[in-house]
Amino acid sequence: MSLFERRRARMCEWLAETGTAAALISLPANVRYLSGFAGEGHLVLTGGNGAVCTDSRYELQAKEEASGLETIINVNGQLASVNEFLNAQGVSLLAFEEHVITYAQFQQLAEQFGSENLKPVQGAVEKLRIVKDAEEIDAIRKAAQITSRSLTELLSELGPGPTEREVALELDRRMVMNGADDAAFDTIVASGPSAACPHASPGQRRLAEGEMVKIDVGCRLNGYCSDMTRTVFFGEPTAQFVELYNVVLDAQEAALEVVGAGLSCAELDGTARAAIEAAGFGEYFTHSLGHGVGLEVHEAPRVSTRSDETLEAGMVVTLEPGIYMEDWGGIRIEDLVVVTEDGCEVLTETPKIRY
Amino acid sequence: MSLFERRRARMCEWLAETGTAAALISLPANVRYLSGFAGEGHLVLTGGNGAVCTDSRYELQAKEEASGLETIINVNGQLASVNEFLNAQGVSLLAFEEHVITYAQFQQLAEQFGSENLKPVQGAVEKLRIVKDAEEIDAIRKAAQITSRSLTELLSELGPGPTEREVALELDRRMVMNGADDAAFDTIVASGPSAACPHASPGQRRLAEGEMVKIDVGCRLNGYCSDMTRTVFFGEPTAQFVELYNVVLDAQEAALEVVGAGLSCAELDGTARAAIEAAGFGEYFTHSLGHGVGLEVHEAPRVSTRSDETLEAGMVVTLEPGIYMEDWGGIRIEDLVVVTEDGCEVLTETPKIRY
Repeated sequence: MSLFERRRARMCEWLAETGTAAALISLPANVRYLSGFAGEGHLVLTGGNGAVCTDSRYELQAKEEASGLETIINVNGQLASVNEFLNAQGVSLLAFEEHVITYAQFQQLAEQFGSENLKPVQGAVEKLRIVKDAEEIDAIRKAAQITSRSLTELLSELGPGPTEREVALELDRRMVMNGADDAAFDTIVASGPSAACPHASPGQRRLAEGEMVKIDVGCRLNGYCSDMTRTVFFGEPTAQFVELYNVVLDAQEAALEVVGAGLSCAELDGTARAAIEAAGFGEYFTHSLGHGVGLEVHEAPRVSTRSDETLEAGMVVTLEPGIYMEDWGGIRIEDLVVVTEDGCEVLTETPKIRY
Repeated sequence: MSLFERRRARMCEWLAETGTAAALISLPANVRYLSGFAGEGHLVLTGGNGAVCTDSRYELQAKEEASGLETIINVNGQLASVNEFLNAQGVSLLAFEEHVITYAQFQQLAEQFGSENLKPVQGAVEKLRIVKDAEEIDAIRKAAQITSRSLTELLSELGPGPTEREVALELDRRMVMNGADDAAFDTIVASGPSAACPHASPGQRRLAEGEMVKIDVGCRLNGYCSDMTRTVFFGEPTAQFVELYNVVLDAQEAALEVVGAGLSCAELDGTARAAIEAAGFGEYFTHSLGHGVGLEVHEAPRVSTRSDETLEAGMVVTLEPGIYMEDWGGIRIEDLVVVTEDGCEVLTETPKIRY
């Protein structure tokens, strides 16, 4: 059985367990996970068979990437003849991804099947994707290595002068030179007070002596993402920077210390949060500790106080505490780790300074 | 009246004409067009009022960008309290964008309003966006100038050696250095036989002497896009390249000759297509002649044989005939133009070689 056949077999178990005859998979990461097909289109799965529904632009790609699956090419839209395939399989009830399919697409399906034969589902494939298989961990590890090498190189040369945007571009360029397919998301380079916004867009602000710069970056390799953040200071760091930086670093190290299979995501978040709260800065840690990373930069599990998930070996998550103060700036330190039975493997290698 | 108030007044005319009490606008380009707000969220419009529905991450941005509109911040999702605003306005019937709202979002609205009070619509704001106002044309012109300058500079230095991906990165870097906010889409650099695919991703293939390279590039400035393509040959062009190149260039010039207010989009496409067909290569021109460009890279009108739209002054469209032959390569020449009463203004300035 190929990797994709194994994954589809697990999806078939879900179909059987939920009494669903067939499923229409539409989220691009889910389609790719179950079929290998990375173009635009949908995947229809029954207990025993499957087909990629796409249009002529992706015909060749679908045949190459989704080997072992039928390819249905339709000129009137990618959903126009889902029913032909399913009728041939004698299937009438179809599950669809309600968080992906638009209302207009739903109507198109309803014309083919009747709305009473359509079953909205959410998260079925996403659940399978939470625990990564060896091939996925290998891809994410390589993506994290490329990002780490690129960021380490850049930091060794970086100083006051360039704009945030120029630095972001240079980092993106280095990642591709080092073998990445692309940046995994818009690289964040935020300096001085701009660092106060957790997800600032890099602007025309120039990096300056006596200021911090926060860099959040990841690349994509064969569909898989990496994600990491470092914050550095140019020149003699201020007492406030040193204090807050070390609080964040201690919180991050506390999370790295406890992470491992069996721990709940809420407890993991709580460990880092407690460290920041104990230092008196809890109100400035305004987001959750982390999130899963895989075919998407943000995917399950959520590492948050409100999460009800428990860590398992093979999950890949970020640990990224931060402190953000308006008009002053912000500090975030983020590593990407694979959860193991007795701890974790840290995938991001760029050294963390202790100020 | 501000620019956005004027646009919303036109949307109110649409509400009145169609007997719709209120509209929920969700496509990001439509939200930005009508409100100025460029973050994640929705816009609710009634005949006399409007509000941006978003979450806390975008609160400040919404207040700054969508001045004159209420801002509704909801922690339970951006659609969670659309009805509070509308109930306060005494409105019950709500139009929504059926090509944007997911089935799950539709259910969330149906819980608030009852599905019988929801009216699916498609393309209402997109229709307003087809004819650009002066501010928009100015933004697109600037974006096209930056792209043209960047591509002209790059072509003057370009030769065999670098990979497609390296060239694409360098072009993206130059556009940002020349003032762009970002690339408007994934830059295409396709060389030799790879150019046969109209939308090839730049790969590890190196540009080589005796081969063509096709470069399709655009940038984004203040939300507005540009789009252009040039194809060049390194070294002494082959007879086949010269023949096909000149067919494409003649077809493009024929289209530039006839374009103007009052011409149907189908006729415009037909003019270029007839030139390529007359030369015997009609079957290798596999896509339509062009498309509108604005807040989105691809928007109305379609410049296609199947289009039923007629050009009006102020529309901004691409003219991009191409010839693609498997295992050989492909040639595309694309300019971006503003339609005027008596012709057009060409926005893309990079010279077109005649081989």
